[in-house]
This record gives sequence, C-alpha cells and structure tokens, in this order.
Amino acid sequence: MGSQSREFQGWLGLDADSVKGNMKWQSYAPKDWEETDVDIKISHCGICGSDIHTLRSGWKPSDYPVCVGHEIIGTAIRVGSAVKHVKVGDRVGVGAQSDSCQNRPGIRPNKDEDCAECAQGLESYCARMVGTYGSRHFNGGKSLGGYGLYNRAPGHFVIPIPEGLDSADAAPMLCAGVTVYSPLKRFGAGPGKKVGIVGLGGLGHFGVLFARALGADKVVAISRREDKRADALKLGADAYVATAEEEGWAKKHKSSLDLIISTVSSAQMPLGDYMGMLKAGGTLVQVGAPEDGALPINAFNLIGGGKKVAGSMIGSPSEITEMLRMAADKGVKPWVEKRAMKDANQAVLDMVAGNARYRYVLVNEGIENQVQAAL
Amino acid sequence: MGSQSREFQGWLGLDADSVKGNMKWQSYAPKDWEETDVDIKISHCGICGSDIHTLRSGWKPSDYPVCVGHEIIGTAIRVGSAVKHVKVGDRVGVGAQSDSCQNRPGIRPNKDEDCAECAQGLESYCARMVGTYGSRHFNGGKSLGGYGLYNRAPGHFVIPIPEGLDSADAAPMLCAGVTVYSPLKRFGAGPGKKVGIVGLGGLGHFGVLFARALGADKVVAISRREDKRADALKLGADAYVATAEEEGWAKKHKSSLDLIISTVSSAQMPLGDYMGMLKAGGTLVQVGAPEDGALPINAFNLIGGGKKVAGSMIGSPSEITEMLRMAADKGVKPWVEKRAMKDANQAVLDMVAGNARYRYVLVNEGIENQVQAAL
Repeated sequence: MGSQSREFQGWLGLDADSVKGNMKWQSYAPKDWEETDVDIKISHCGICGSDIHTLRSGWKPSDYPVCVGHEIIGTAIRVGSAVKHVKVGDRVGVGAQSDSCQNRPGIRPNKDEDCAECAQGLESYCARMVGTYGSRHFNGGKSLGGYGLYNRAPGHFVIPIPEGLDSADAAPMLCAGVTVYSPLKRFGAGPGKKVGIVGLGGLGHFGVLFARALGADKVVAISRREDKRADALKLGADAYVATAEEEGWAKKHKSSLDLIISTVSSAQMPLGDYMGMLKAGGTLVQVGAPEDGALPINAFNLIGGGKKVAGSMIGSPSEITEMLRMAADKGVKPWVEKRAMKDANQAVLDMVAGNARYRYVLVNEGIENQVQAAL
Repeated sequence: MGSQSREFQGWLGLDADSVKGNMKWQSYAPKDWEETDVDIKISHCGICGSDIHTLRSGWKPSDYPVCVGHEIIGTAIRVGSAVKHVKVGDRVGVGAQSDSCQNRPGIRPNKDEDCAECAQGLESYCARMVGTYGSRHFNGGKSLGGYGLYNRAPGHFVIPIPEGLDSADAAPMLCAGVTVYSPLKRFGAGPGKKVGIVGLGGLGHFGVLFARALGADKVVAISRREDKRADALKLGADAYVATAEEEGWAKKHKSSLDLIISTVSSAQMPLGDYMGMLKAGGTLVQVGAPEDGALPINAFNLIGGGKKVAGSMIGSPSEITEMLRMAADKGVKPWVEKRAMKDANQAVLDMVAGNARYRYVLVNEGIENQVQAAL
C-alpha cells in the first residue's frame, strides 16, 4: 500500500440527518501521534446502538463531524515505541473505550491520588474515560471511530484477537459482547446459577450465548413478544418468557433466578416483576441506558429478599481479553450479518429499522475502490 | 419461683391506641409447646421502631392483641429435647425472627424443593419467615414478643449470648445491630474500605460502631441536621455530613466511599447525591423500609459507575452469633438507656417522640411486683 492508502478516510456524520442514510465519505485528521498509540487498518466494524444515538444526537448534541463505530477489528500497521503487547501485523481490536487515565499518570484527575478505578482494572469507570468516538483525547485530538479505513488508538485499549475467532464474530464482542460478559462474570454466572436475560437484541443475544458458555445451569430469555422464541432457543436458552403475551409469567417464574441482565433501554419495563423472578440475594444488572427517566425501585423488593439492582458499563481491556479467549475456546458463535463498508448508510437504516438479527458488521474489502466507484 | 411465675404475662397492645401509652398488662397463652422450643425468662428487651409501627398498625393492620418487642435477652428456663445448643440456665437472646422453614422439612413452601434461602443460611429471607411477634407459628400459635415476663421461641432462633457482653447492650444488637452488621459484613466493610452511614438513629448508631469495629479505614456519618455531629464523632465516626445544612456536601464527598448503609425510612432522601458519594463499583444498601413509595434510581448513576443499590433485612442466627462474638471481643458499646419494664408505656411514648439516644432497653427487675403495685 502506498502512502495515499494511509490517509484516514471514513463515513462522517455531519449533522443529525446523517442517521437517515446521509453519512459522507471524507478524509479527516486522526489525533496527533503519540508513542503510546497504535494505528490499525480496519477490516471489520460492528454497528452498535450507540452509533445510532450519536449520529442523531440522541443522548446529547454530538460534536460533528463524527465517525462512529466502536467494534473495530483490523491489523496493526504502526505501533508506538511505548506499546509492548502489540506488534506490526497483529490482528487487534478496539472497543467502545480508547483511553482512560491509566497510562498517563501526569494528567490523572487528582494528581495527589491514583485513579482508584484504573488501579483496580476498572478502566471503564475511570472519570477520564475517552470514548472511541465522540470524545477528545488527552492531547486534544478528536476521537474518531471505525466506519472507515484506519483507526488510531492508545495502545492500552488495543486488544490482540486470539486465533480461532472469526473477525466478523469478534468485532461485536468488543462492545455488545463485553457489556454483558462483564456483569455475567462479575456477578457469578456459571455452574449452579440460573440466569435471565431481558431483551433479545444485539446485547441480549450475547447474554444468552455467554451465560451458556460460562456454564450457567439455566438460561432464561425474556422478551416482550413471542416472535424471538425460536431464535432464543437456538442461541441456547433453556426457556423463553414473552412478557406481553404470556399469562401469569411473573408468578410462574417467581424466585427462580440468581442473576438477571437487563439489556432494555426503557424505564417502562416491569421491573417489580423482574425483581420477583430473583431468588433471595439475587441481582438484576441494568446495562441498557434508558432515555425515559429513573427506574422506580420498590425498597421492599430489595429489602425483603436481600436483592440488588446494579449497573454495568462495557468492560475493561482485561475483561475483553478474557472474554475473547473464552469465546475462542468455547466456540461462541454470535449471529452476525456482514455488510460491505460501502453500504454503511443502508446498514445504518436497517439497524434503525430494528432488522438486525442480531448484529451487522461492516467489512472493508477494498473499500477505497468501492467507494470511489459508487461516488 | 413457683408455678405462678411461669404464667406468661406482658404488655399487650389491644388496638392502635396502644401506641399512645395504652398497652395493658395481661396474661396470655404462648404458642403450644414443641420439643424444638425454648422458654426464656426475659431480663431485657430493646424498643425497636418496628414495635411502634406494629402497635399503631402503621405498616398494615396488626393482629391484636399484640405483645411487641424483638430484642429479647433472658435465661433459658425450659429447653425442648430437640434443641442441642442451649441448656437450662444459659443466657440467650431472640431477635426479630423466631422461625423459618429451616428446621421443619415437612412444611417447606414447595415440598419438591428445599428452601434455597435457608439452605444457604439466609433464614431471614425465607418465604416462610415467622416474626417474633405479629406472626403465626407453624403450629398455628400467635407469636408474642418480649415486653413481658417470658418468651417461647423455636430453638433455631435462640442465640446464646457470649460472656463479656452486658445484657442491656446485647439486646438491641439482636435486631437493630444485626440489621446493619449483616450488610456491612456481606458487602466487605473492613480494612481498606470507606463506609458511609445514612441516618443516626438506633440503626445508624450501630452502623457507625460496627463499621469502626470491623476495621473500616473511614466512617462517615450522614444525617440531615448538625445536632448529631458530636454524638457521631464520639461513636467513632471520622467525619459527619449534615445534608440539610452543609453547602456543597455532595460535591465535596463525591466518589469517596466504597459502601453506604442507608437506615432512613423515607424515599425522599437525596439518593442521587448518595450514589454520587460512592466510588465506581460501590454499593448503597437500603435497610430502612420507606412508607412513602419507590426509590427513584437513575440508571445512569448505576451504569456509569458500575454501582449497586441493595436491600438487606435483619440477619440470620449465624450472623447474629458472629456479631455478638465480635462485639464482645472488640468491646463494642452501644448507647443504651435502661427503662423499667413497668414503665414500658412511657418508654414507648418517648421512643415515638424521637428521644432515644440511641436505644431504650426495658429491664425486668421483679416486674411482677412492680406492676402489681402500680395497678
């Protein structure tokens, strides 16, 4: 590849209309190079719900132009001298976070004190988290994501991908996957435990796969309608609950689960009934971020059963590494539909329409030529 | 003592007005004897907030007549043949729970399945919990509490009191104490941890004492007004926050605590600010049962910091035993005001008025004669 091919190009959202099929293929400047960085030639990038929120300024006004995509797989083509765990030519990935205070002691939030979160390997809770897109790096450069040719990311968040995992399968694990893997692991999903997964979308389908792979005794998929029952069982669920169509489900499944991962993004869910599905001492972990207000939690539901409601956000580099290793070892196979990078606009439209079963992954196959031809 | 002294007598609430100084000293029949039971001659009984709720039918209509009191200390005077850990003459206690399905396999909630809670030593979350008063025993007898001369309780919930603990100090530990000890212990209060205690009443004062005794690095007492600051510091708190009077407290204490125990019984507390006081991964445990609705929990508060909101209810016999042992070893000294059993009505009035600093304990000193003389 010549020097021209090192020009950063990608699909940019220029305003909130970009979500309607209007991202533009443009060149842009990555953050200034630092010797802690890695440049990646992108081969795959998953389409995440966050991409949609960001393109349309759904959570907050986005800092346009944005290049979304934070489920990035590719090849390391330039590796900073301070990066020891990656070498040029390695297959690597970047998830939703591309920096924290971790490897930059000089600019920690409070210079008198280490960041307790990073010190514990909880980088995803670092107050100085830098998102893979829509954020600013510590050196001031805009963070720009994976709907394009290249990504430049601080090395601490560049994860080697183990052999035996297909790149298209690994990509969506980097955000959707670890978002459910992290709480499943931390809250003990495994042998002897019965686990519920609320919502069967990109996150929920990983919830079923990973709960199964971690060896949970029973996996119950919980969704509103019947239409995903067959998929849930094929993914490995032992049981399926259609809350909007099944009479008496709450009573039938009362006090039956040790752990519930809720991937839905609405506060309007029947939270009291979900809490009732937990055994004493059980935990419901919310990973979906509702746009419609606070979760109303009845204190008696918590106290009477010694139950917990927790939150969890993505996962740390060490959790991602552990998840990928397990996925490779256990042959975890997500349901992924490949889309050409040149068709990113259409893929976004399909994602918005709720058609993903269960994750679209953009694939770069000589996109430079493809996009040129399409223009 | 003659046979007459074995007649169960005590202060009975006959209706909701009993909370206004109108409990009546009467004889009553205990539950029918079973060989799993222990009869206790009561020497001390703490006055708990639950007593007040029950006397006035505050939570639900009470099953009058009630004899309240579930922080009972006394001497075992009759021990069923099936009870192995207590002998006649032992000093023993009974807390807020006097039975569960634990030792009665024949009447477990689901005969096909063990009670998972009791099997794990989580008796206080057993669906068949029997309260020390206001409940029905498995044999149909009413459960009657400790404002009286004797208590009859299933032996599994009769706890030997270790030497070195004053009976008046041990009494309030049996409910108020273990209600905070259990979550402190289960959620890791100890060396390396910083703990907040919200509310400085009977429960909260134990929260400060036990967090200190468990070796927490820092204990922060949190109340609305300044007026309890001196007490909190004397109890062992390192810092005090008066949320209604101190400007900028939420910002000042942001991300500083590993664990918060909330003992307040109102959903109107500034829960978002309390969640903000937690470090990433921290837990707020609610032990106070609000009468005024659901806790509004912002999902972003949970997700962004990987935080948890938990509930906890009293504690199991093994937790009570462990707590008493630690209290004896570490010389934990609650702030207790002794009141004569004959003055129970006045003590209840003082409790309702909020005057307890921080626990009233009724003491039986020849009450038979005292009450007779007072009538």
